[in-house]
Amino acid sequence: MQMALDEAQQAYEAGEIPIGAVIVCKDRVISRAHNLTETLCDVTAHAEMQAITAAANTLGGKYLTECTLYVTVEPCTMCAGAIGWAQIPRIVYGALDEKRGYHEYAPKAMHPKAEVTGGVLEEECRSLMQSFFRSKR
Amino acid sequence: MQMALDEAQQAYEAGEIPIGAVIVCKDRVISRAHNLTETLCDVTAHAEMQAITAAANTLGGKYLTECTLYVTVEPCTMCAGAIGWAQIPRIVYGALDEKRGYHEYAPKAMHPKAEVTGGVLEEECRSLMQSFFRSKR
Repeated sequence: MQMALDEAQQAYEAGEIPIGAVIVCKDRVISRAHNLTETLCDVTAHAEMQAITAAANTLGGKYLTECTLYVTVEPCTMCAGAIGWAQIPRIVYGALDEKRGYHEYAPKAMHPKAEVTGGVLEEECRSLMQSFFRSKR
Repeated sequence: MQMALDEAQQAYEAGEIPIGAVIVCKDRVISRAHNLTETLCDVTAHAEMQAITAAANTLGGKYLTECTLYVTVEPCTMCAGAIGWAQIPRIVYGALDEKRGYHEYAPKAMHPKAEVTGGVLEEECRSLMQSFFRSKR
């Protein structure tokens, strides 16, 4: 999660909403990414989406059934849907997203057996987000 | 919708799940795409996702607030989330997707004021899907 937080910090410095994601397969980091919606002018360029695309590319297969996704903020509906399609069995996130998090909008989007853990480095993940939005006001 | 169906036919011929999407802005087609999950080895490469990315690229802005999305099959949770982020106000789809459609998993994913119409060229859109899955058995 510290690595995902480093990615989020890079997003912050680039003027992007500071969210980072890392995918690990058998103790090896196979992708890391941060939000690029402004840079790419693309609402689909969330950290998780890019990490999933890159991980599939690294593995040469589109199902990430032996992977863990670490992401600094609770995934949104779109990303939860992508996590479901990729069949990622373990998801670890930092801060809750009460407005856009999948819990509220699509609680069944991921695989029914996926193991989800929230609140890891929660304070650091949330502070970075709060600091970003404060600076935009 | 006929153009989206032509895209779906192209997907079919390429061995992809036959779903096509077209985005129209002020009576002009600004993007068209079909499912490429096999070709790109990427679960996120749904027709709608690619059409949204391409449309934003064409317009030079990531919000598609004056656009209509035509898609041959009801969007999934991931795509519905992306449609929500892109703020697309009008969605027209062909066949229902009872297993993976957003109605079941994320009915609130799109903008609350989005106007959604299903069942356009429904029979043609569904037949193409059925024919594809029958050929795979």
